[in-house]
Amino acid sequence: MNSIDFLSVVTTLKRIPRSGWITHGVSLPDVESVADHTFSTCAISLLLTDLERRRGVRVNAEQVLRMATLHDLAEALTFDISKSYLSYLGERGSELKNEIENSAWKYLARGVGSVSLSIGYSRLQKQYVRNMTVEAQIVHAADSIDILLQILELRKRGYPADLVKDLWSETVKKVRDTPVHSAKDLLRTVTRSGRKAALYSLK
Amino acid sequence: MNSIDFLSVVTTLKRIPRSGWITHGVSLPDVESVADHTFSTCAISLLLTDLERRRGVRVNAEQVLRMATLHDLAEALTFDISKSYLSYLGERGSELKNEIENSAWKYLARGVGSVSLSIGYSRLQKQYVRNMTVEAQIVHAADSIDILLQILELRKRGYPADLVKDLWSETVKKVRDTPVHSAKDLLRTVTRSGRKAALYSLK
Amino acid sequence: MNSIDFLSVVTTLKRIPRSGWITHGVSLPDVESVADHTFSTCAISLLLTDLERRRGVRVNAEQVLRMATLHDLAEALTFDISKSYLSYLGERGSELKNEIENSAWKYLARGVGSVSLSIGYSRLQKQYVRNMTVEAQIVHAADSIDILLQILELRKRGYPADLVKDLWSETVKKVRDTPVHSAKDLLRTVTRSGRKAALYSLK
Amino acid sequence: MNSIDFLSVVTTLKRIPRSGWITHGVSLPDVESVADHTFSTCAISLLLTDLERRRGVRVNAEQVLRMATLHDLAEALTFDISKSYLSYLGERGSELKNEIENSAWKYLARGVGSVSLSIGYSRLQKQYVRNMTVEAQIVHAADSIDILLQILELRKRGYPADLVKDLWSETVKKVRDTPVHSAKDLLRTVTRSGRKAALYSLK
Amino acid sequence: MNSIDFLSVVTTLKRIPRSGWITHGVSLPDVESVADHTFSTCAISLLLTDLERRRGVRVNAEQVLRMATLHDLAEALTFDISKSYLSYLGERGSELKNEIENSAWKYLARGVGSVSLSIGYSRLQKQYVRNMTVEAQIVHAADSIDILLQILELRKRGYPADLVKDLWSETVKKVRDTPVHSAKDLLRTVTRSGRKAALYSLK
Amino acid sequence: MNSIDFLSVVTTLKRIPRSGWITHGVSLPDVESVADHTFSTCAISLLLTDLERRRGVRVNAEQVLRMATLHDLAEALTFDISKSYLSYLGERGSELKNEIENSAWKYLARGVGSVSLSIGYSRLQKQYVRNMTVEAQIVHAADSIDILLQILELRKRGYPADLVKDLWSETVKKVRDTPVHSAKDLLRTVTRSGRKAALYSLK
Repeated sequence: MNSIDFLSVVTTLKRIPRSGWITHGVSLPDVESVADHTFSTCAISLLLTDLERRRGVRVNAEQVLRMATLHDLAEALTFDISKSYLSYLGERGSELKNEIENSAWKYLARGVGSVSLSIGYSRLQKQYVRNMTVEAQIVHAADSIDILLQILELRKRGYPADLVKDLWSETVKKVRDTPVHSAKDLLRTVTRSGRKAALYSLK
Repeated sequence: MNSIDFLSVVTTLKRIPRSGWITHGVSLPDVESVADHTFSTCAISLLLTDLERRRGVRVNAEQVLRMATLHDLAEALTFDISKSYLSYLGERGSELKNEIENSAWKYLARGVGSVSLSIGYSRLQKQYVRNMTVEAQIVHAADSIDILLQILELRKRGYPADLVKDLWSETVKKVRDTPVHSAKDLLRTVTRSGRKAALYSLK
Repeated sequence: MNSIDFLSVVTTLKRIPRSGWITHGVSLPDVESVADHTFSTCAISLLLTDLERRRGVRVNAEQVLRMATLHDLAEALTFDISKSYLSYLGERGSELKNEIENSAWKYLARGVGSVSLSIGYSRLQKQYVRNMTVEAQIVHAADSIDILLQILELRKRGYPADLVKDLWSETVKKVRDTPVHSAKDLLRTVTRSGRKAALYSLK
Repeated sequence: MNSIDFLSVVTTLKRIPRSGWITHGVSLPDVESVADHTFSTCAISLLLTDLERRRGVRVNAEQVLRMATLHDLAEALTFDISKSYLSYLGERGSELKNEIENSAWKYLARGVGSVSLSIGYSRLQKQYVRNMTVEAQIVHAADSIDILLQILELRKRGYPADLVKDLWSETVKKVRDTPVHSAKDLLRTVTRSGRKAALYSLK
Repeated sequence: MNSIDFLSVVTTLKRIPRSGWITHGVSLPDVESVADHTFSTCAISLLLTDLERRRGVRVNAEQVLRMATLHDLAEALTFDISKSYLSYLGERGSELKNEIENSAWKYLARGVGSVSLSIGYSRLQKQYVRNMTVEAQIVHAADSIDILLQILELRKRGYPADLVKDLWSETVKKVRDTPVHSAKDLLRTVTRSGRKAALYSLK
Repeated sequence: MNSIDFLSVVTTLKRIPRSGWITHGVSLPDVESVADHTFSTCAISLLLTDLERRRGVRVNAEQVLRMATLHDLAEALTFDISKSYLSYLGERGSELKNEIENSAWKYLARGVGSVSLSIGYSRLQKQYVRNMTVEAQIVHAADSIDILLQILELRKRGYPADLVKDLWSETVKKVRDTPVHSAKDLLRTVTRSGRKAALYSLK
């Protein structure tokens, strides 16, 4: 069996910049890697899982952490195609994005070198995209909270509010709409921290 | 409850360079972040868990992934104190390293904002350091394999074998000594790939 | 009339890394911008035009330089989707690539703020893609020669031959197959220079 | 014939930072390359040419694009000696600047490997410096507009207005004084866009 | 005799980032090297020495410059352990910091390859830490003034006042408390310059 | 009195890249700052002073360290005009270089804000350029040894011998011709270390 393709994709993610930030005008050396973002999503997912459990929600932590770890793996091949595509491709954009990411994911899963593992990983990825289980919803919320934290990071280094205003509001909205209650608590914590740091223009 | 300190540590790890590479002479912009390394450790741990299970070994995957996610969190505060300290501090070095990392870890755990979570996280960290359970051993092996993959990365970009020769051999030795059998299989895969890439000088 | 979208795309290209180099394993700070590459393509196209004219070939220099300037503009939106897509998308890959780049180009042309200019620019882009006129062939050859020069640059900084071996041979092949004779002369010059610099492993 | 020196200069420009930005206090990784700037000047020159033609002005587009492509080539050798020299060299400064750039340019032209091409390129460069033809004036205007766009870029990333206030006003003044009418239209577009982006402090 | 270890430490300092800035949230490519800081401390120490002499104070300039050159050499080994350690180590922090830096310094002094030189260098370092002589006080003041200048640098590039407010006030306080009168004059000059640059929020 | 211009030049040197390395093809993020180089020259000058004294040579250490600290200050204004100028300016090149650096130096000396200090600093700079005293010769030797160490640094990171062969031989020659005997000892140490590190191609 040969898992080198899987390992090589993992290593590559350390070098792939999150292209969404480039589109938003962030200076290249200030752009985090996809691996940076994925780690943060894992850690926030872990925290959300524990907070949800304390509220009495049943969560399969193993599944959450697997999904968080794998959720952006395909970006080693797709280079983080972001929603900016949608601006000029219109509705066709999300179709294309899905087709490309699905193909990339199949290619990756084969790289694990084991059919059964490969099927398992693909199934998880589909569960993440469908976003119907509490586990998937936790990872989506964590993904959003990481974006908000990264915006605060950029604001603290002097990036103006205008640069990321749209991204901030649409991401805040996503967290407000999530069924994961602890994520909303976390959102309040994050927003309050942003306000304290005199980053008022972000509501 | 207030988890902002925990979140802020997670975000900080994206900006902390792995100082071991600086010590080894790697150019600063080529040095990965601690977050980059942690993501990779998570992904490799996940793969090792699945490979071990296929060999019939019982592994608590949730625990493995929790440990992998948290294992380098303290470096946001300690700035990745590495073994280079030992060279001039002698035996006293590892004592100091432990004392500093323990204090950092306690400080972090308090930042989670919940006593029970904090206790749980600290317990995991201790389990990782003691390295007696199969779960801890998988994370240690994954940590080592990530180092080997990163060395191959650097070699592919032209860094000479001499720069990382010592690190390579001592890390290979660690994986050879692990009780995690799949890690040894993975080691062979990694080594073979290095050899194919004409990086012969690394045995 | 309002050309700010066109200008903003031009400025953005200074910040978009040529993702092909990332795929090949080049360290991010060593990756040129799409603007860097486009300038070089312009200068080499200009030289090829003059050399071809001295051979008695009739070339419309204005058209060559227009095409060279505009040929990668769409990458501000598509983020330099490269042939790596083809590896996991198969034949469907080049279809998708075309669809995405065409949509991007239409979006851009509208940004010029003038219907007639927009039509003219789109027509040029189509001429470039079809690659049937001597003008388009000169720009394609210049684009290839810039890739070869960039490979030599990387080799001089210590990147190993293996990293770029495939790209080197396929690009050399392209120049060998071009009907632009001066490009073949230039290829010999470039290859000889690479050989002098003791970069033998590149044939 | 041997054009390798010319090609090597072209490639070098990708690595030469525009030193004017360093003098103004811009952080090194945020400084564009001379090649970045030259590409942008080419694209804006092309747009200005087309806009002027629509106003009924006769413009030799080939000459404009040749001049734009070549206008900063000498900076591969002079490292973008900027007007900061004038501050301590007084009037003697512009004499020296001219002498150095002329010598550099002669050296470059010889590198083309053909006497006739070399003479042609030198003649174009002189025409650019004299700034008497509409073609030269278009390239000068494009060069200025690129500076303004780059200032807006820096402002969007958080650089304060004070850092570039002087450069902004003197460059705006240059565009106001140009006989190229479309450049003034473009100036209004650029200024309005700056104002929208809440970068008010730039008048 | 063999001084290669000493030379290698000197060279290494060019690559070690001042970790205090990372802790404060400065973007990694904007973080100066320890060598950058040491050069600046040397130059400011030299100026302070000359200004003090003009006030009639007797200063041993050789000793000042030796101390300034050597004062941060140990950071090649300790990686600039900063006061952030104190936040989680409490009082124990400064004990540990001292123990680690002392061991590092002894290790370095041995690297000079000569017992007598080594003893001399260690004695100077102790004099610097004790901070009782006018020479040591000049170097401490220069070290502080460099921090203030660097903060102004960061402010000019757009870093918000909040990011460095605490560091600014505590460093200003240090200079106010120094017995070196010219340092207080210099402080006024620096502060006034900051105020002119509209960086009001820093008092 | 107002020394802010002097201080601002000192701070600027942290951001000025040593342009000689860019000319030699070193990747921009791998290029040290002028401040980095100056610090290293100070430290090596200090070591050479002590080694010479042990040989019984009388050296004014204060003067050595002042000269080392100030020797490249003018590069904040001249942007490290290097000998590459000579290649296309011929003999006129070194005349121009001198004229520019002298004017820059006068401008700087005025910035100290005190006539007597200014005269003293200018006198030192002249002594350095004339290179007739043992103090000046020590600083020149230190400057050369820093270049050799930096070449070894680059070689260790994978830069090929060819890139810096010429610079290496001409710098070795300079040290061989110096009357400072300890510098020749140091040269042997440096060369031997290079040889050990399997960087044979540098003789």
